[in-house]
Amino acid sequence: MIISLLTDFGLRDNFVGVIKGVILGIDPGIKLVDISHEVPQGDISQAAFLLKSSYKYFPCGTVHLVVVDPGVGSRRKAIIVKTPRYYFIGPDNGVLSLALEREKRIENIVSITNRRFFLEPVSNTFHGRDIFAPVAAHLVCGRDINEFGIPQDGYQQLEFPSPKIIQIRKHVTYGKNRVLQGEIIYIDHFGNLITNIQKDIFKRFVGKRRFFICLGEERVIGRINKNYSQTPKGSPLSIFGSSGNLEISVNCGSAREYFGASVGQIVKIY
Amino acid sequence: MIISLLTDFGLRDNFVGVIKGVILGIDPGIKLVDISHEVPQGDISQAAFLLKSSYKYFPCGTVHLVVVDPGVGSRRKAIIVKTPRYYFIGPDNGVLSLALEREKRIENIVSITNRRFFLEPVSNTFHGRDIFAPVAAHLVCGRDINEFGIPQDGYQQLEFPSPKIIQIRKHVTYGKNRVLQGEIIYIDHFGNLITNIQKDIFKRFVGKRRFFICLGEERVIGRINKNYSQTPKGSPLSIFGSSGNLEISVNCGSAREYFGASVGQIVKIY
Amino acid sequence: MIISLLTDFGLRDNFVGVIKGVILGIDPGIKLVDISHEVPQGDISQAAFLLKSSYKYFPCGTVHLVVVDPGVGSRRKAIIVKTPRYYFIGPDNGVLSLALEREKRIENIVSITNRRFFLEPVSNTFHGRDIFAPVAAHLVCGRDINEFGIPQDGYQQLEFPSPKIIQIRKHVTYGKNRVLQGEIIYIDHFGNLITNIQKDIFKRFVGKRRFFICLGEERVIGRINKNYSQTPKGSPLSIFGSSGNLEISVNCGSAREYFGASVGQIVKIY
Repeated sequence: MIISLLTDFGLRDNFVGVIKGVILGIDPGIKLVDISHEVPQGDISQAAFLLKSSYKYFPCGTVHLVVVDPGVGSRRKAIIVKTPRYYFIGPDNGVLSLALEREKRIENIVSITNRRFFLEPVSNTFHGRDIFAPVAAHLVCGRDINEFGIPQDGYQQLEFPSPKIIQIRKHVTYGKNRVLQGEIIYIDHFGNLITNIQKDIFKRFVGKRRFFICLGEERVIGRINKNYSQTPKGSPLSIFGSSGNLEISVNCGSAREYFGASVGQIVKIY
Repeated sequence: MIISLLTDFGLRDNFVGVIKGVILGIDPGIKLVDISHEVPQGDISQAAFLLKSSYKYFPCGTVHLVVVDPGVGSRRKAIIVKTPRYYFIGPDNGVLSLALEREKRIENIVSITNRRFFLEPVSNTFHGRDIFAPVAAHLVCGRDINEFGIPQDGYQQLEFPSPKIIQIRKHVTYGKNRVLQGEIIYIDHFGNLITNIQKDIFKRFVGKRRFFICLGEERVIGRINKNYSQTPKGSPLSIFGSSGNLEISVNCGSAREYFGASVGQIVKIY
Repeated sequence: MIISLLTDFGLRDNFVGVIKGVILGIDPGIKLVDISHEVPQGDISQAAFLLKSSYKYFPCGTVHLVVVDPGVGSRRKAIIVKTPRYYFIGPDNGVLSLALEREKRIENIVSITNRRFFLEPVSNTFHGRDIFAPVAAHLVCGRDINEFGIPQDGYQQLEFPSPKIIQIRKHVTYGKNRVLQGEIIYIDHFGNLITNIQKDIFKRFVGKRRFFICLGEERVIGRINKNYSQTPKGSPLSIFGSSGNLEISVNCGSAREYFGASVGQIVKIY
């Protein structure tokens, strides 16, 4: 009985501890694992990316609870989604969608409406405590998903940038007339710049020919590293990171600082 | 067997991990839940507020361990307090008092003196490891509270600001001659300004008439939101937060930054 | 079945959560305890010091997993070391060495080579997830250490500064001709300056005579406190901290800020 937790609550306040208290009050045998609580405030995209990159490393039956919920207390719905291996719970604001797209099959979607499982009185600012925590706990303990509310057809999709191939006039320097254009979707604690360009897309585009990786129009590097140490300390490199995406890094340093980079910045492969 | 932990040790060092190691060495079946370890250094008031707002969400029998202890190694006492549903352990410096005031009954207070349960040699700087951790572990495992020391009559109270109603000359702008005056007692990670004005006090003061909420003399808003989304993004609002207190917030933003606010600042209701 | 975790992964990303998911996927009964995840990026010395100061507070049989691994994906080895009471797992880059030196006996060292326990495909950037997590999980579940790879003779030692006694010309102010010279090896979250001068070395050097503790050439203090409160708030003091080392602190303040101190700075005892 495992519940993973992904929120933007931070660790300075008591929000996360209170959620855990509520869950353990329902069954003290539940195992709680923090994915992160440092998602930037209300940043649904970042949370969705973190969930997508994490959920499948948890054992079958894990309930993934995500509370990044800028619309808390409004009419946005709260949902449970069942896939063959997992349950996902969160506000229906797109935060679950990147993970759900990866799952082969959606078995059931329920809009959480049954107040019987809520902590009363339900506040308007902390559904993590009053709705999501008790629902997740009862669910992981074996309650049928349909007890929590009413079936719902789809779920909110997230606008998430996909890489695309663009036809261009022959590039003066690189001599190419096609560019694979992606962007930075996440920057981790080490300052690694994680792009939305996945290995297979990259390989298909590049084939066996020479290529140039550019951050904006600035050329970064023309090869893919096998590991960080192939490049001298303090120098930039490209590598397929642990999520399978192309990353721009600096060996023993921060590519964020090196390039002054930020999420959303364009990455081009010529 | 649950122990909650609330400290100012931070998560950068090994303090919290070591405390957990000591506890699990006594019984590996104990469940540990962090409330927060990011209490500002030695800030007894903030810790007391966090404990008060958290403890009752934990299941009956939980041992709440608080180590915010600027007087560690001095003659300040260490105590265990038993209430009908919980145990509280910490230095007798007031950090437990806000939670204890909320409890209906204090069943027992013990000054921790029995060195049999201590980790020897007891350091003068880390009683969290050498005294509090082993005592909490043995207590949650079922040891009688009286084994840990000698009974004690009261506990240190904390000076904590209460809201008060002040008679004034008729206010030029608001036309009132009474003001409910409270203050900001906590600012959370989202920048929400949590006041000490609880819902029932507010309601009783305001009744059904018009009111004005002011931060210092600056008028903030004249109504209470049901949720954040009622107010446009980036604009300030007032709401009863998850602790039942009046909070000043900014929808999808930080009221701390918006108002340049800090703990202790006066909040007035006209 | 306890695994302690010490990494430089931070808590903002999903690295630590994913490692825990992998471990619990092998056995959900495993107990996970964080020592710290805020080791400065790639700082092997700081991690080694934290491990040394923490590991022995955990119960017998604990697997201590350390992933501070700037050489990930290169040819640096990954090792398991068995001592009478613990297992240690990490990259063979010296990060385990300070703890191992403290252990009376090394029973076995194995270079991790058996891919049967790895999460395939093994990434080149996240061995924490793909190698260390599953190996630690299988090990704590009772697998024989020799199943994980091939025996290895020694392990990488860390260059770690030791205090030394230096003969000098008679000091003008202090009138001594010998100085015990150490340095700051760690600064904790409270700003306490932890030196590498251990209590017994200090005592032996100083004996019963008068002494002067200097940070660089600046005289700090001429006595050792029993506790922080002996010194007025905001003033500096010296104390033997919880690790048994000489620390320079400021009562209810930060010695780091007070002295503008940093790791590596020289501390002299005259």
